[in-house]
Amino acid sequence: MIPLRSDGPSLYEQIYEYVKKEIRRGSLAEGTRLPSTRVLAENLKVSRSTTQMAYDQLVAEGYVNAVPHRGYFVLGVEEMVEVEVELPGGFIREEEGEQGKTIIDFSPRGIDLTHFPYNAWRKVTKNTLVEDNKEMFLTGSPQGEPALREAIRGYLHSARGVNCRAQQIIIGAGNEYLLMLLYQILGPGRTIAMENPTYKQACRVFESLGYEIAPVDMDGSGMEVNALKASQADIAYVMPSHQYPTGIVMPVARRQELLRWAGKKAERYLIEDDYDSEFRYKGKPIPALQGLDKGGKVIYMGTFSKSIAPAIRVGYIVLPQPLLRIYRQRLGFYASTVSRIDQRILYQFLTEGYYERHLNRMRAIYRGKHDALLGQLRQLEQDFEISGENAGLHILLTSKKGKPEDWLIRRAEEKGVKVYGLSSYFIYSHRRCRSSTVLLGYARLSEEQIKRGAELLWEAWRED
Amino acid sequence: MIPLRSDGPSLYEQIYEYVKKEIRRGSLAEGTRLPSTRVLAENLKVSRSTTQMAYDQLVAEGYVNAVPHRGYFVLGVEEMVEVEVELPGGFIREEEGEQGKTIIDFSPRGIDLTHFPYNAWRKVTKNTLVEDNKEMFLTGSPQGEPALREAIRGYLHSARGVNCRAQQIIIGAGNEYLLMLLYQILGPGRTIAMENPTYKQACRVFESLGYEIAPVDMDGSGMEVNALKASQADIAYVMPSHQYPTGIVMPVARRQELLRWAGKKAERYLIEDDYDSEFRYKGKPIPALQGLDKGGKVIYMGTFSKSIAPAIRVGYIVLPQPLLRIYRQRLGFYASTVSRIDQRILYQFLTEGYYERHLNRMRAIYRGKHDALLGQLRQLEQDFEISGENAGLHILLTSKKGKPEDWLIRRAEEKGVKVYGLSSYFIYSHRRCRSSTVLLGYARLSEEQIKRGAELLWEAWRED
Repeated sequence: MIPLRSDGPSLYEQIYEYVKKEIRRGSLAEGTRLPSTRVLAENLKVSRSTTQMAYDQLVAEGYVNAVPHRGYFVLGVEEMVEVEVELPGGFIREEEGEQGKTIIDFSPRGIDLTHFPYNAWRKVTKNTLVEDNKEMFLTGSPQGEPALREAIRGYLHSARGVNCRAQQIIIGAGNEYLLMLLYQILGPGRTIAMENPTYKQACRVFESLGYEIAPVDMDGSGMEVNALKASQADIAYVMPSHQYPTGIVMPVARRQELLRWAGKKAERYLIEDDYDSEFRYKGKPIPALQGLDKGGKVIYMGTFSKSIAPAIRVGYIVLPQPLLRIYRQRLGFYASTVSRIDQRILYQFLTEGYYERHLNRMRAIYRGKHDALLGQLRQLEQDFEISGENAGLHILLTSKKGKPEDWLIRRAEEKGVKVYGLSSYFIYSHRRCRSSTVLLGYARLSEEQIKRGAELLWEAWRED
Repeated sequence: MIPLRSDGPSLYEQIYEYVKKEIRRGSLAEGTRLPSTRVLAENLKVSRSTTQMAYDQLVAEGYVNAVPHRGYFVLGVEEMVEVEVELPGGFIREEEGEQGKTIIDFSPRGIDLTHFPYNAWRKVTKNTLVEDNKEMFLTGSPQGEPALREAIRGYLHSARGVNCRAQQIIIGAGNEYLLMLLYQILGPGRTIAMENPTYKQACRVFESLGYEIAPVDMDGSGMEVNALKASQADIAYVMPSHQYPTGIVMPVARRQELLRWAGKKAERYLIEDDYDSEFRYKGKPIPALQGLDKGGKVIYMGTFSKSIAPAIRVGYIVLPQPLLRIYRQRLGFYASTVSRIDQRILYQFLTEGYYERHLNRMRAIYRGKHDALLGQLRQLEQDFEISGENAGLHILLTSKKGKPEDWLIRRAEEKGVKVYGLSSYFIYSHRRCRSSTVLLGYARLSEEQIKRGAELLWEAWRED
């Protein structure tokens, strides 16, 4: 809060001097967004014209940059040691390209946040911080709040067919942290079989912890079990409900084969990453592999990053009994990495019906975008095969004529459209450099952008 | 939110039915505290007598337990699979002991939360969630928000004499997570020298990750450098400003010796855990070891768990340049484990003066407790040596007559007072089982409890 004196210089000068000093001494780093003139005026209980005058002066002297429709951002000054610049906002990625072309970015990462239920989130946050809840600032349960775990258990049971007890669930600050915990449960020296192509982030975590990675090829049903057997791996990391990036859904027979493989040795486990099971556009939801497991062989992982927001750093793993025992014996000393307040907020969000309503709404929105994209891509069907289109937030296009992905990417780029090559998802990319497949993510684009983008792709990939 | 119908049964019955169903199906786990009748009434926009009637019925039927001055807690019912019971609230630990004696618990863990600035926290939380800040729900910078890192840098520089740039700081969900990151930076196969006795939690993390621990004895200046040299360690974990649990402050000469030791080999580093430097009652603050380091040999760690609250899962490390380079090359892919919203709340708390005011207030409160304890312990001075009394939230008492700690603990317990033996802080406790020292923490006790507790100790330890 800016301390304002009634006996000093004019109020606008005091605000201006204060902010300037904060920027000069480096307390407000480059790229920081200042509160809006309206919010600042409300907080300081001054008129909006006062805060506007203060900001105008800061802009005039070069301390602050005013970006129309975005707000006020701190500029770099001499004393600043920080050189990184945080990109502010920008989940709408349409901007002018180099040749003045519209950039439409079909990035497969990120989610649509324009429909985030801000009001509901604010409301449950406010409810959580009522005076009675002082104990929330104390250390909580290491595995996460029992009530939240119970709510997650209920959701997983009804929505994903996961069979577990709340005491098997560990809540953590994102799945990468949970993989670090899992490393300490499974112990060093393991080899992890991963679908190839796969989610590279998990691959990097395993490698960074010193595990060997055994890339295993896939057929139309997912990870090939013979190739898995031939590998030295005793852990397999799979995404059976919607493989990333291929979108393959693993049929029940293959799931059973994997479970049989795991059942043959005590030290074998399957890690089921169920990262985006919430969004499916055709038929009933695909139940989790975990629900088929009778032998305590599946480690189930889920996250709220896709279904709520990436900045909500909450994920969870469900440990089978043998691993839960190891966790309790050796790792029970670790405090939870998620703040108890945030757990309570999420608990309210789940149990008061907000989550379900939000998911239903987002499913409809993503379905709209998905249908818009597929409708527009019909004109490409003669030359391209579409796959992975029944679920998730991206689809794949494969050139029937074997056009290399580099060519597809470059031609699209010339029209101002960004698409993503499949080859970068392969664990050893040199083995598969001849990909003819690109990924198109649509979560962050509007239906208009998607339609325009697909039209531009048609122009880009037409034979001359 | 409980959905209330105007055409259904009476409002109290609807609330009662709803809560009962939630408990029966397990969505409200055993031990969960229900909102107060007042808060629930406000949220549902019904009268307080309505919510009171609903709760009374739930209590009558055995679904809910009413604890005077605490609130309403969910009881276990048949369908519940969860057996763990979360201890609600209870930072005032005075209760009736087995023989009807008053229990006064001098636990060295925990902090005083009765003076937590709830209003300020609520206010910054509300300010953070204003509509303009939608980008907060997007993925942020992997090391943590630049503005927050800059604020921490400023604080560390002025309050702790730490010299660093904001880009050397990594914010993480607690120091245990940050040690897992550090493990991946330093690589496997290391031996860590630790002061003996030490903070066992860090010891457990290192062991769990597969590091060897080399316990190193201390003299009055802290870790003995000759013993350190004799160990096979190339990393030393130290708490120079206020060693835990002994309270030893490492003098500058010993610090320089440690820095010289580290400077002799490229792979050597010092980890400085500056866990509770905020609370000092005599003389000026002891600056951090990091400030003396010219060779990039100190990894500095800090936390807000002691100075704000344990449930705020935010800690940070400051990496020296060589390790920052490794982090950026190999571990930059890890997303931050702290939610961007929480980072923004903390940023506001730091930069708007709340943190400084809170620290000043807590320093005065802890000083009051500290003085009350020491004043009362004067009557024990003939038989006991007091140490570690200039800083932190606990002191140590050593029997001059060599009374074993077990005797001290047992006799105190008979009077209804809990004190903690030093031996449990030794890495190999069998080597030091003959401790005559106990720890007395006072953060969570009131001055009255402290005075009464010290009196009881005097009675307990008197010669018969």
